[in-house]
Amino acid sequence: MKTVVEQTRQTIPGLEEFCSQKTDEQIPFFSRDGRLFDIIYGQQFDREFLDQLCHLADLIRQLARTKTGSRQLRSLLEHKRAMLYFVQPSTRTFLSFLNACHLLGMKVSESRETSTSSEVKGESAEDTLCTFASYVDLIISRHPEAGFAQKAAWVLNNTERPVPVINGGSGPDQHPTQALLDIYTLQREFRSIGGLDGKKIAMVGDLKRGRTVRSLSYLMKNYRDVTIYYVAPNEFRMKSDITSFLEKQGIPYHESDDFESVMPEVDAIYMTRVQNEYGGGPEDEPTDYPDFHFKAEHLSLIQPHCSIMHPLPRRYEIDVLVDQDPRAAYWRQERNGMWIRAALIAYIFGQEQEVFSEFK
Amino acid sequence: MKTVVEQTRQTIPGLEEFCSQKTDEQIPFFSRDGRLFDIIYGQQFDREFLDQLCHLADLIRQLARTKTGSRQLRSLLEHKRAMLYFVQPSTRTFLSFLNACHLLGMKVSESRETSTSSEVKGESAEDTLCTFASYVDLIISRHPEAGFAQKAAWVLNNTERPVPVINGGSGPDQHPTQALLDIYTLQREFRSIGGLDGKKIAMVGDLKRGRTVRSLSYLMKNYRDVTIYYVAPNEFRMKSDITSFLEKQGIPYHESDDFESVMPEVDAIYMTRVQNEYGGGPEDEPTDYPDFHFKAEHLSLIQPHCSIMHPLPRRYEIDVLVDQDPRAAYWRQERNGMWIRAALIAYIFGQEQEVFSEFK
Amino acid sequence: MKTVVEQTRQTIPGLEEFCSQKTDEQIPFFSRDGRLFDIIYGQQFDREFLDQLCHLADLIRQLARTKTGSRQLRSLLEHKRAMLYFVQPSTRTFLSFLNACHLLGMKVSESRETSTSSEVKGESAEDTLCTFASYVDLIISRHPEAGFAQKAAWVLNNTERPVPVINGGSGPDQHPTQALLDIYTLQREFRSIGGLDGKKIAMVGDLKRGRTVRSLSYLMKNYRDVTIYYVAPNEFRMKSDITSFLEKQGIPYHESDDFESVMPEVDAIYMTRVQNEYGGGPEDEPTDYPDFHFKAEHLSLIQPHCSIMHPLPRRYEIDVLVDQDPRAAYWRQERNGMWIRAALIAYIFGQEQEVFSEFK
Repeated sequence: MKTVVEQTRQTIPGLEEFCSQKTDEQIPFFSRDGRLFDIIYGQQFDREFLDQLCHLADLIRQLARTKTGSRQLRSLLEHKRAMLYFVQPSTRTFLSFLNACHLLGMKVSESRETSTSSEVKGESAEDTLCTFASYVDLIISRHPEAGFAQKAAWVLNNTERPVPVINGGSGPDQHPTQALLDIYTLQREFRSIGGLDGKKIAMVGDLKRGRTVRSLSYLMKNYRDVTIYYVAPNEFRMKSDITSFLEKQGIPYHESDDFESVMPEVDAIYMTRVQNEYGGGPEDEPTDYPDFHFKAEHLSLIQPHCSIMHPLPRRYEIDVLVDQDPRAAYWRQERNGMWIRAALIAYIFGQEQEVFSEFK
Repeated sequence: MKTVVEQTRQTIPGLEEFCSQKTDEQIPFFSRDGRLFDIIYGQQFDREFLDQLCHLADLIRQLARTKTGSRQLRSLLEHKRAMLYFVQPSTRTFLSFLNACHLLGMKVSESRETSTSSEVKGESAEDTLCTFASYVDLIISRHPEAGFAQKAAWVLNNTERPVPVINGGSGPDQHPTQALLDIYTLQREFRSIGGLDGKKIAMVGDLKRGRTVRSLSYLMKNYRDVTIYYVAPNEFRMKSDITSFLEKQGIPYHESDDFESVMPEVDAIYMTRVQNEYGGGPEDEPTDYPDFHFKAEHLSLIQPHCSIMHPLPRRYEIDVLVDQDPRAAYWRQERNGMWIRAALIAYIFGQEQEVFSEFK
Repeated sequence: MKTVVEQTRQTIPGLEEFCSQKTDEQIPFFSRDGRLFDIIYGQQFDREFLDQLCHLADLIRQLARTKTGSRQLRSLLEHKRAMLYFVQPSTRTFLSFLNACHLLGMKVSESRETSTSSEVKGESAEDTLCTFASYVDLIISRHPEAGFAQKAAWVLNNTERPVPVINGGSGPDQHPTQALLDIYTLQREFRSIGGLDGKKIAMVGDLKRGRTVRSLSYLMKNYRDVTIYYVAPNEFRMKSDITSFLEKQGIPYHESDDFESVMPEVDAIYMTRVQNEYGGGPEDEPTDYPDFHFKAEHLSLIQPHCSIMHPLPRRYEIDVLVDQDPRAAYWRQERNGMWIRAALIAYIFGQEQEVFSEFK
């Protein structure tokens, strides 16, 4: 009766098939009743959604300024509980989501280590997700594995009690809420000059592997007359999947390795660092590219309204001396992440009208 | 004056004597004014208590369905603070307690690692407990050491400011809140057919070391005309302390290693996994017992009302294909843990009448 | 274009200069509008401030006794969010601050590990601080590095959105909130006999390296007619910087290595343990000094009102048998830490009048 067996864990019927589908085929699955239910891909966002969310974020930050307003904010979702499931370390995204939840009155559980989980007892990742979902109303996940978030959303949408999933970063490619905060920052920095439409945006640094600049490029299709300037060393040029996409969408872009010549041309400069944590190869050497740094002396080269952005953390790409300049937008950008994530969570639970009604 | 001494830490007077007492002798110590104060042993629960707690859990989950009701729930204990002291990893029990506290409005502190504690500075376990109790109103502990919870309760009941203790699992034997959620699930799954009285329950798997099936067996004395079917490989049969107990209580039980023959007979099947994490010995080899698994094809063998339970995490004992069947109760069972723990905490702080009054 | 460079991180202009200033020169920087904004040094506290804070702590603990009062307390700062940034393990200080925040309704984020932070991505400590400050309204830090807290306060006070810093212990020297709780305990234990003025205080143990006794000595200048008895083995005598300070201030002190002869003389005995965690040297051997322990038999030697204190954790310095004596004040002292920290946080956000108004 006792048999030493080579166990193969069964997978949930339909899961593998779903995971093998293309992004476009998967996307409809993450909506319910014409609204986004799970937030997995940047491709889920259209202009109407982005505009609505930015507006909602503006109203939320305005409410948070007063004690009464912040009490109204907390009353929105004080009956809901969230789970932050962060398998991959991420101070910034974690704190940003946590405080977004706190702003809305949500109680938060967290799992930041695999070692405290039941995986040591041989539980499948799917069962672990279902366990988390048993206790909460929203799962926000961050995972080193590409495809994790869509798998999680599929599993949790197919239970007796579906629970929405927000992708807080999965693998090298998708980080949709970072894209949201970048869009929100651009719109907000340009709010007195007509918003993002018609602007020229430089993206600088490791464009090949940087998921923020890749996502941001995709989202430009939602805005009119935007021009992109890709500024990178030759080995870190933007990949052809993105440039092909831009060509199809009719979005003009320029490529250059001469950062200083681009500086006076643009309305925003989006700096990125070299991503040592991904993959091997010769680009992982402890080298740096000082020609792709933004230094204090460059402040005199850029336009008076030009916004300097960075997804952070920075290493040496931007001089700390630049921080004092009002055009240095990266710290505001970071805090915008909290507001736009609060807006996103409020949206997921259908609370927009509640927020709007506070201003009537 | 300076002496290298072999230090022997003193123990609190009376503690050793208390710890050496039998369970039955210790139990009265955990009650105050005719009510349970600390929750340490499954043996503390009688039928009246169990019925009351299941009823309270039903009302709490009903209140939690509305925003108003959940606000009333949070108002119950919003002035109280709990400490989750989990020295042993446990995702499920931890999250279940944490969210139970959140439902009741409690603020929660947690200690999940011994390395961040003062033990490195040479503090005794008793002093660490007193420190935790200094700041909070309730301690929920999980510890690998048998006897830890009763020691903690004794220490904290003998201070200027007694703080109740809930045992969230201590060592291989006691996990009383797991027993509560199992009872609650059985009662709830059978609620349209008269509850647990008169039912036939199979317990399957590692009965020798599984503390859930041991505790559940003990609690059966509180229910009328229950019959137990123990289904296990020979090396994992239920131990004689439990079967002797059943005999004394007049609770009929059967033993079998033929799972399929038992399936059609019973009203509930309680599956367990082989517990590799305890102790050494040949049973820790990476073997499995496929004859004691519940497979999709077994769904046709069991009764239409038969409830399939599992304390989780599962490894291979239940096919994931079974999850879709309405008789698969284990995910509901897991979530029941949150509700019954919320009921237990509300009870400890004497909040039953407050909950009942919401329904008047 | 690609260059392997030896990177030197720039520092924020002015930071180095500030850090090289003496304590007295730095202190004005931590106040705004005549009130303390950051809490970095014990030297920031004068008698008026200490008396006000002790009074505030008394009122807060009184409010916390009732459900209504505790709701009023939480309403004070429910719109604020704090960050506990504890790089160094500290159960007691951490829990004390956390529960102080909870009492006042604050939401709390925490970072207790450097490994989950962005430092692995090469971020500077200053940027990490600014990130934390992006999401919250108060930073409470604990750090092994002397000077960390003042650096943090300087950095965060020089941003677009200044955020106050409380020093929860930095390096071997400063732990101002420990000093506050010690003062609060002395005042409270002596409340029926005129408070701390005119009392005789023994400080016992490792006076050379113990930062609590050093800070407490400094603060004695705020009280009238206090006499200090330093009781220590020769190798752990109080350093001359403190004794010089006392001489300048005209505060009488005695030094002794005969603990028992001092016992009957004093109104309070402040016990400390030998601090193995700091520095090397021969004093780090696993030795102990039993002549500097307080044993049960000593209870008959001290005055009926004499208060026995200890910053905890204790090792063997105080018999557990002593705990039952009403003069054993160390557990009350520990809990006082929560109340005085709640008072401090309420003060920082200017909530004193709100608290006082509850008693009108």
